[in-house]
Formats: sequence, C-alpha cells, structure tokens
Amino acid sequence: MMLTLQPLRRLFQKTGAKRVSDDAAQELGKILENKAKDIVLEAKRLSEYSGRRTIMKRDVKMAVKNLED
Amino acid sequence: MMLTLQPLRRLFQKTGAKRVSDDAAQELGKILENKAKDIVLEAKRLSEYSGRRTIMKRDVKMAVKNLED
Repeated sequence: MMLTLQPLRRLFQKTGAKRVSDDAAQELGKILENKAKDIVLEAKRLSEYSGRRTIMKRDVKMAVKNLED
Repeated sequence: MMLTLQPLRRLFQKTGAKRVSDDAAQELGKILENKAKDIVLEAKRLSEYSGRRTIMKRDVKMAVKNLED
C-alpha cells in the first residue's frame, strides 16, 4: 500500500467526519492508488510520445485530462 | 499535503518510469488529494443520509459511483 491508514483517517476528519471505520479508510486508499496508477501510466506514455525519459508536471496534467474523456 | 513525495515517486518507478521530476510527483499528489476530498465529502453525506455517524466502506464505494455519474 502506498498510503498508510493514518493520513487517510486525518483526511476524513478534516471534512468533519466524526468516526470512520478502518475498512472505509482502507477502501479510500485502494481507490486512490488505482487512480494514481492510471495517471502514472498515461503520463509515462505521454512523456515517451514527446521523446523524453523524464516524466514532467505537464505529462501528469495532460494524463488527467486524457483520462477524463 | 497528505502525501509525501517519496511514496509518489515509488509509484512512478513501479510503472517503469526511469525519471520523474519533483513537480510531476507533487502534481500527482495534489490531484489525488483533491480526488480524496471529493470522495470523503460524498461518503460523509451518504453516511448521514443513512442516519449513521460512522463512515463505512460501503459509503466510500457508493461515493465513488455517485461521483462517476
């Protein structure tokens, strides 16, 4: 897991949630990690398309746009 | 920031990305954090709708579905 439970729980608490089950925090972590993987794969594809070996901020931004379509 | 740079960089590297700018990793963190906030707010709304004070896994799952529509 990329994300540990504690920062995820904090995020729930910041929105005013009083109680959060561990399951719920874990599920959020899983969802975010899958989302991240999709973005990274697309960003990598875009950097390669541009003939670069380094993934840049603009690759990440464009990746999010492409995935929204 | 909920997410620190190092786990984000690892995620890039797991997909086979050789080099990643700090900007790119930071941008991914920002995007994931915003996504997380949307999910948490919706999950909280759903738990309240069900008359519960505890956010459960199923609230998170339903929140993701609702946000996809």
